[in-house]
Amino acid sequence: MHLDPQSFRDLDPGSRVLMGPGPSDVPARVLQAMSAPCIGHLDPYFLALMDETQQLLRFLFQTENELTIPVSGTGSAGMEACFVNLVEPGDEVVVCVNGVFGTRMTDIVGRLGAKLTRLDFEWGRAVDPEAVRSAIQGKAPKLVAVVHAETSTGVCTPLEDLSKIAHDAGALFLVDAVTSLAGMEVAVDTRGIDAVYSGTQKCLSCPPGLSPISLSPAALKALDSRKTPVVSWYLDMSMVRNYWGGDRKYHHTAPINMIYGLREALRIVAEEGLEARFARHRLNHLALVAGIEAMGLSMLVPEAERLPMLNTVRIPEGADDAKVRGSLLRQFGIEIGGGLGDLAGKVWRVGLMGHASSPRNVCLFLAALKTVLRDGGVKVGAGALEAAAQAYSR
Amino acid sequence: MHLDPQSFRDLDPGSRVLMGPGPSDVPARVLQAMSAPCIGHLDPYFLALMDETQQLLRFLFQTENELTIPVSGTGSAGMEACFVNLVEPGDEVVVCVNGVFGTRMTDIVGRLGAKLTRLDFEWGRAVDPEAVRSAIQGKAPKLVAVVHAETSTGVCTPLEDLSKIAHDAGALFLVDAVTSLAGMEVAVDTRGIDAVYSGTQKCLSCPPGLSPISLSPAALKALDSRKTPVVSWYLDMSMVRNYWGGDRKYHHTAPINMIYGLREALRIVAEEGLEARFARHRLNHLALVAGIEAMGLSMLVPEAERLPMLNTVRIPEGADDAKVRGSLLRQFGIEIGGGLGDLAGKVWRVGLMGHASSPRNVCLFLAALKTVLRDGGVKVGAGALEAAAQAYSR
Repeated sequence: MHLDPQSFRDLDPGSRVLMGPGPSDVPARVLQAMSAPCIGHLDPYFLALMDETQQLLRFLFQTENELTIPVSGTGSAGMEACFVNLVEPGDEVVVCVNGVFGTRMTDIVGRLGAKLTRLDFEWGRAVDPEAVRSAIQGKAPKLVAVVHAETSTGVCTPLEDLSKIAHDAGALFLVDAVTSLAGMEVAVDTRGIDAVYSGTQKCLSCPPGLSPISLSPAALKALDSRKTPVVSWYLDMSMVRNYWGGDRKYHHTAPINMIYGLREALRIVAEEGLEARFARHRLNHLALVAGIEAMGLSMLVPEAERLPMLNTVRIPEGADDAKVRGSLLRQFGIEIGGGLGDLAGKVWRVGLMGHASSPRNVCLFLAALKTVLRDGGVKVGAGALEAAAQAYSR
Repeated sequence: MHLDPQSFRDLDPGSRVLMGPGPSDVPARVLQAMSAPCIGHLDPYFLALMDETQQLLRFLFQTENELTIPVSGTGSAGMEACFVNLVEPGDEVVVCVNGVFGTRMTDIVGRLGAKLTRLDFEWGRAVDPEAVRSAIQGKAPKLVAVVHAETSTGVCTPLEDLSKIAHDAGALFLVDAVTSLAGMEVAVDTRGIDAVYSGTQKCLSCPPGLSPISLSPAALKALDSRKTPVVSWYLDMSMVRNYWGGDRKYHHTAPINMIYGLREALRIVAEEGLEARFARHRLNHLALVAGIEAMGLSMLVPEAERLPMLNTVRIPEGADDAKVRGSLLRQFGIEIGGGLGDLAGKVWRVGLMGHASSPRNVCLFLAALKTVLRDGGVKVGAGALEAAAQAYSR
């Protein structure tokens, strides 16, 4: 088989402004950490880094959970890891669905042979705890699952009531924090979350490739008392925990350099502090919304249910979805996301995640969007930048 | 929860000479590629990189298989991906076991509810095709699986006869090429391999984190005619292929920067050429063995069954396994591996993989091992370096 090595050019992705649903812009410190020399997965230096990474993850998740580790795969691997370890065939599982990622949960649960109760809510609205309470009345689910920050719609579902409802029903409470972690409070312990997973490429601003997860003592007890083996060897936490825990028993080779990057991203989070980081995400979100509304565009999600890091903007009449996104990318290097599922062609998803949540990006995006929309003949209100500036000066 | 960010030092793993069972030393070009700016998983530039990565992987696997992609996980995720896509509950699966990784295959097959036929062979010897032929006589297995290069023992099992035996029985032929790929011929198409997986951290000399796999048209047919869904959503190739294939349908976020690294590692392989690369691995292996034997040590595996990239050396009498490996690492920065399972404490596993397969490393290791053994009071023959030099000048 012939192949000309010269036909593959030197890598040069150029630079982007990543304001889509993830990945987000990665700071130079993280990229540099990832390019440090690879060492062995049982090297004493690496074992120490693993301990530090777990410590930093516990800080970020706000938990004392011993099993708090990065799964060796992207966010969806973390989702699968949580379900596959906690669900056995025949188990009753309740999944709240208000977007793509809740739907994905039901797909995974279905494959595991569980008895699925799927509770559907409007896409673009939060899950209604009272509806969940009545739906599970009289049932004895093993698990109640919800997406904290629906990346497909920009909706935040508050966790406190749902946690209580799940526990009152004797169930474990499982949360998707892929997009929320490091951009808003997840607070695993105070909110009684039993299983949670996230991704590195959202508000952590690390490249995609790892999925931080945390399991509570109650979740570990469920794992320990399984009657059937975990169907996935790769994600079987009853084995993986022995590598991350005290006895360092080899399971699979850890993704060394990705963990370098994650640790550096977590150091950056710790240096900023959680409260400051969450406040920054909130402020940039408010400025963006002020600008968007000044332009005469509107948000999909009611104000009280909006995420700070993922903003769904309704596509204004007359605008060509693909053309606008293409122009933003080509002319300004800005990536934003299109809608998924029923929301395709109806919304844009504008991320302000982690390192990318900055006044610079808010102003750049507002200016760029205005230019592109006007070039496309769409009427746009004036004063977007001023409105954003006002939000900052409040 | 309090945490002092200052207690986490700047990353500085120092430098190692990675001569264990993997990861192997990663060339600077690959590390640099990994530190390029992260871009979106649907960015036109990244989509083009995906195509190139697939082209380069097909070249390396020596296959025309359309589904030739990196799975978003380490080598064991590739193992799981192959089995989980091709095996349904009740299917008959034959696994040849002559080490840790064949054993791992049986573990995975068991979890899938398949009817497992486990054929055991001596650890440290190749699988005997005739034994496989008689064992499966009268059976109708869906799959026959074997490890090409057993990383736990240093044994190479030739594939041609087993491929014929599998196909004669109407089965698919599945091969673990984690350690062999890019260090010796795998030749997927000429050897009739239907499913194959590898890892990036062995002879590809890329950090761990991805698992290149390839599925033949016959394997895809088996996937397409499944009666039950693939139990893993994350590894379901009936969906993943739509992202890597023509219609670019989003499945999970690809590990962007890891793919940058893999592509660069594949470019390096293509520039060297497969034949030259395999010859280099073979030559350095012969030189190492010559030196080892000149020191009076012996190899675990009979000459004809040895792998070029993973050398199992019997631990000489009087040598303290852990102390010797510890001294090699502390004094010389050299990582080698200990034995696994029954071979723990009996052998050292010395890797000469990819970038790390070099005369420099062979000479350094021989000199270092001699020093460390003598320091530990073990008698060692003279002339190891001369013997290695002779192998090179032949």
